[in-house]
Amino acid sequence: MRHIKLVLAYDGTSYFGWERQKGFPSVQQAVEQAVESLTGQRVPVVASGRTDAGVHALGQVAHLHCETRHDPATIVRALNAILPRDIRVCSAADVPESFHATYDARGKLYRYVLHDGPVLDPMLRLYVWHCPWRLDDAAMHRAARCLMGTHDFSSFETSGAPRQTSVRTISHLTAQRAGPGHLWSRQPLHGVDAAADLVYIEIAADGFLYNMVRAISGTLLNVGRRFWPEECVPEILAARDRRRAGPTAPAHGLFLVSVQYDSAAA
Amino acid sequence: MRHIKLVLAYDGTSYFGWERQKGFPSVQQAVEQAVESLTGQRVPVVASGRTDAGVHALGQVAHLHCETRHDPATIVRALNAILPRDIRVCSAADVPESFHATYDARGKLYRYVLHDGPVLDPMLRLYVWHCPWRLDDAAMHRAARCLMGTHDFSSFETSGAPRQTSVRTISHLTAQRAGPGHLWSRQPLHGVDAAADLVYIEIAADGFLYNMVRAISGTLLNVGRRFWPEECVPEILAARDRRRAGPTAPAHGLFLVSVQYDSAAA
Repeated sequence: MRHIKLVLAYDGTSYFGWERQKGFPSVQQAVEQAVESLTGQRVPVVASGRTDAGVHALGQVAHLHCETRHDPATIVRALNAILPRDIRVCSAADVPESFHATYDARGKLYRYVLHDGPVLDPMLRLYVWHCPWRLDDAAMHRAARCLMGTHDFSSFETSGAPRQTSVRTISHLTAQRAGPGHLWSRQPLHGVDAAADLVYIEIAADGFLYNMVRAISGTLLNVGRRFWPEECVPEILAARDRRRAGPTAPAHGLFLVSVQYDSAAA
Repeated sequence: MRHIKLVLAYDGTSYFGWERQKGFPSVQQAVEQAVESLTGQRVPVVASGRTDAGVHALGQVAHLHCETRHDPATIVRALNAILPRDIRVCSAADVPESFHATYDARGKLYRYVLHDGPVLDPMLRLYVWHCPWRLDDAAMHRAARCLMGTHDFSSFETSGAPRQTSVRTISHLTAQRAGPGHLWSRQPLHGVDAAADLVYIEIAADGFLYNMVRAISGTLLNVGRRFWPEECVPEILAARDRRRAGPTAPAHGLFLVSVQYDSAAA
């Protein structure tokens, strides 16, 4: 039996999210079907976490257990030959049997991208949220800083999702302007371009509540458009009340950039 | 009567090209419908030239004559509110009655983008041609140089299109590696990145024969993958025989970047 870790990239536009759902196309279903075509085995492919309908991934991580004699490079090529072109396997690796993509994840990096120019390039329409107000990215960045560290993020959680605690630790949170060259990068943004029309919100944390990145992005948007003063963000955090925060930003501007594991795990 | 010049960007994926065709969606039809919705007038919108099915544009230029009291900025906003999101009006301007988007065009810049990394980012699948051979971009660039200047480009013309002469003048022709930040730029590429997986072919000429950029791109691809020596390109040019050149590269990697006019015309 082989134990395999996959790094996956996908355009979420055509899928009802990662998780298999009867009657709706999902990324998980597509990957599991490709694995079955390659190996003849119906095995679950388990991701680091769900992504919602329309959310994209640059470095989703998943694991599976199957029998195959193909080396990892061949598995990458073969799965990519079978998969639809909006889902790609970036890499494959053998890992210890104990590796679990969900439970061993130590942190994730998400990116939310806003465009505040007058006209959105048509090729970006599925990947950024077009906001027709010139955004004060410096105010957004300052407001974001108070969310760094360990807090109860109930104010930024869509209710209904099961979880034991709403305390999470944000280790990295920036709102910065940069050009389109960074859109598909697996690295955190470095190299700001003050003249660009794109504002990147990047958040790394040990875990995320349901819709947390999108609620933070909608809140920072309200600061950036000067609808709210930046001082309101600590008050929203302290309120632990979802009604105080900004709107849930639409799914299509959100990317799961990468998932971090202990080097011992994989 | 107003005489208006539009600069348009579009994602060609869902269209059978610029030109109106009965029973098939076209960019021209969509723009003419939007103008009719805004002004109540059915008027032709005339472009600098056709783009083929699947070809994209960053700076297509078109003109129209209509009655409207809206200022240009309002025309931009109003048309973008009506148009599908894969077609955008970038700008509008009043021009002299004599301005003709086709006949006054002095030159165009096209870009063809190849990706030669092992795995294509899923978000780029509709905008670049994925070639699974590592390309020798320096050889492609050297081979391209011999096409500069005034020549009979019959070897790079798909037959069947009406034209008086197959002589054209190429003023700019480069094949260079760069990152994805340049994909949507209206400027010629500057700033090469030797580590990038994208090879940009950029060609400016006073006019283009049918499929000329795509035939040149397919020829340079054969040089880049070392299937042909770079010295073959002058021979192909001299042969004036389409069968000697490389394959017509697929439409989805091609962008009409910009159209040049005499400043007196518009």
